[in-house]
Amino acid sequence: MEYWVRRALEVTKTPFLLFDLSVVEKKFLEMKAALKGADIYYAVKANSHPRILSLLAKLGCNFDVASKGEIEKLLALGISGKRMSFGNTIKKEEDIAFAYKNGIRLFAVDSEMEIEKVAISAPGSRIFVRIATDGSDADWPLSRKFGTDPDHALDLLFYAAKMKLIPAGVSFHVGSQNLNPESWRKAISVAGKIFKKAMRSGLNLFLLNVGGGFPVQHRKPIPTMEEIGRVIEEAIDENLWFVHGLKLISEPGRYMVGEAGWLVTKVLLKSERNGEKWVYLDAGVFHGLAETMQNFEYEVRVLGKENDELEEYHLAGPTCDSVDVIYDRILLPKTITLNDLVCFVNAGAYTVEYNTYFNGIEPPKMVFVEELTEISLEEKMKASLL
Amino acid sequence: MEYWVRRALEVTKTPFLLFDLSVVEKKFLEMKAALKGADIYYAVKANSHPRILSLLAKLGCNFDVASKGEIEKLLALGISGKRMSFGNTIKKEEDIAFAYKNGIRLFAVDSEMEIEKVAISAPGSRIFVRIATDGSDADWPLSRKFGTDPDHALDLLFYAAKMKLIPAGVSFHVGSQNLNPESWRKAISVAGKIFKKAMRSGLNLFLLNVGGGFPVQHRKPIPTMEEIGRVIEEAIDENLWFVHGLKLISEPGRYMVGEAGWLVTKVLLKSERNGEKWVYLDAGVFHGLAETMQNFEYEVRVLGKENDELEEYHLAGPTCDSVDVIYDRILLPKTITLNDLVCFVNAGAYTVEYNTYFNGIEPPKMVFVEELTEISLEEKMKASLL
Repeated sequence: MEYWVRRALEVTKTPFLLFDLSVVEKKFLEMKAALKGADIYYAVKANSHPRILSLLAKLGCNFDVASKGEIEKLLALGISGKRMSFGNTIKKEEDIAFAYKNGIRLFAVDSEMEIEKVAISAPGSRIFVRIATDGSDADWPLSRKFGTDPDHALDLLFYAAKMKLIPAGVSFHVGSQNLNPESWRKAISVAGKIFKKAMRSGLNLFLLNVGGGFPVQHRKPIPTMEEIGRVIEEAIDENLWFVHGLKLISEPGRYMVGEAGWLVTKVLLKSERNGEKWVYLDAGVFHGLAETMQNFEYEVRVLGKENDELEEYHLAGPTCDSVDVIYDRILLPKTITLNDLVCFVNAGAYTVEYNTYFNGIEPPKMVFVEELTEISLEEKMKASLL
Repeated sequence: MEYWVRRALEVTKTPFLLFDLSVVEKKFLEMKAALKGADIYYAVKANSHPRILSLLAKLGCNFDVASKGEIEKLLALGISGKRMSFGNTIKKEEDIAFAYKNGIRLFAVDSEMEIEKVAISAPGSRIFVRIATDGSDADWPLSRKFGTDPDHALDLLFYAAKMKLIPAGVSFHVGSQNLNPESWRKAISVAGKIFKKAMRSGLNLFLLNVGGGFPVQHRKPIPTMEEIGRVIEEAIDENLWFVHGLKLISEPGRYMVGEAGWLVTKVLLKSERNGEKWVYLDAGVFHGLAETMQNFEYEVRVLGKENDELEEYHLAGPTCDSVDVIYDRILLPKTITLNDLVCFVNAGAYTVEYNTYFNGIEPPKMVFVEELTEISLEEKMKASLL
């Protein structure tokens, strides 16, 4: 990637997200192999750039959407609503109607009111109930805001049936960047109990949505997709063996694009205050690095200074906002100085999607390795013509 | 404002920031009266909408800018660089050059490297040194990331002189939404010591920049602008009586626009999980309410239900992100339900400036009371012609 950073700087300025589409293809195929027979729904919110969406569509991927805005982006690329699942459990009524009009027939719910909204604006659709998991092994537990108590799931499924919707199954989300495959086993065992109770009550569920949360390589070691896939397979064998024609779904977001991108920034200032050293970059928490506010730990590389002696710094963004501090304490090269390139490794997910123009500062744009290759080829052709 | 919320809903959908420009004019005149002889530099980052900038320009206000992007916005409105101060202490070199080319001659610095950058790209300009204050009475202390130790300020001023810049004076920022006028007195007394030492060393400073931090009415009682102005005047009399032709500057942001706007949102969902009640709105921390992540306490009104019995809720935004929780515990009407209008009072500052399109969700746009008045007049005229 270092080579491509230098190449990118010939055509653009920092900050930018340098992105390699071939990594997305690799990750998609890895997940396809690990979750045999599963339908993969890419969580568009992780990175909604049209080039990524087009590639995934071509590969046969489906899409998990959160809003009308995301649906419109996909439709504009010629992707049918039939390939989309409306996974947000907090939907605008007008967005549900828009989704329905455009062929979406699969919706997530976790409450009575949401079922009512779907029943009115997307009659007869399939719904799955999102249950809460404890998320204790995730960097990003999601259980507080989303998911119903597993004991309440069956009530919701029956309520959906009463509202003339098709109760399809259950979904969960073990929390973003989850490092423990056993989290999926636990959640599937809970789902299995709901399927069993449903069957005994005459309701044949057929959809298991194992959500997202599949981890990306950062500073901690992570399990492979193959390992997680094996645990999921075992857990299904053990807890859902009685379901004929079970449809397995996954909703990877970070997993699919995280390792495909590096966020490339530049040092704007180095200073010392009260004996502490500060480095300020041209991008911060309002310009791509929002997740560091929740202590998301990227690997940080200062290009060309990888072997220099390290010391402790505060690392901050370029805005007049005291919240715009990326890392409170981080080891960086002693020699770091003005205009050095600072790269956040594996930052392809949940970076540019949080872009703001706060302080009038232009946020990072995306630069594709594939584009740079095209430029290189063009240049070579021109050179050979001269 | 309730009346205008209803009027706005006839022409637009939630979420929006309903804004009354006449409040900005009132606040500007209040500050002019309270800080006699001061030049007011509006901190554009608080709300950079062209209608606000144009109004303030017409009133004779100057502008504190943070980036090239903000300078370009002002230039596009015909506002000269002579009326701008580049107040960000973390500037891109190319932005300094752009500012200089467009007539800006006043720059903030708080470190040696920043002085070097200004000396190279904006030679001969006036600079002021930002000193750190303790910020203990502010909702938003800014001292960690910005400002040099007062003991170091004189070194920086002399360094600037050596670099052929004009060392003009000192600035500080008592922290955003500061409720204690005595904070300004303390900071001015520290600045006074620097002015005195400078004079004894043969350096005649002439610029005192008392920054921003002037509070806006939220849930706590606040001092009036008049009270703060009186304290500033007293502190200058006491600590800077020896400076002939002292130029006083202030940089209000929140103060100028906060009370002019209401953020209007709608309830998308109400649900109960684990015995706790949740309400979800169509805007959250990624769509205007970023400051609530740092526990900024807005007054929240549910229109038409102001007198209903209250109970405790979690109040969250519309995205699939667990961070998107506005308030963890807040009292709202028991009767709150789908499509109720929920207003965040005095939210004119630091709301739409943090807008993202995260989850593909359209952020709040601005709607001006003045626009609605124009529409009303047009309708009346049409009606009278029929």
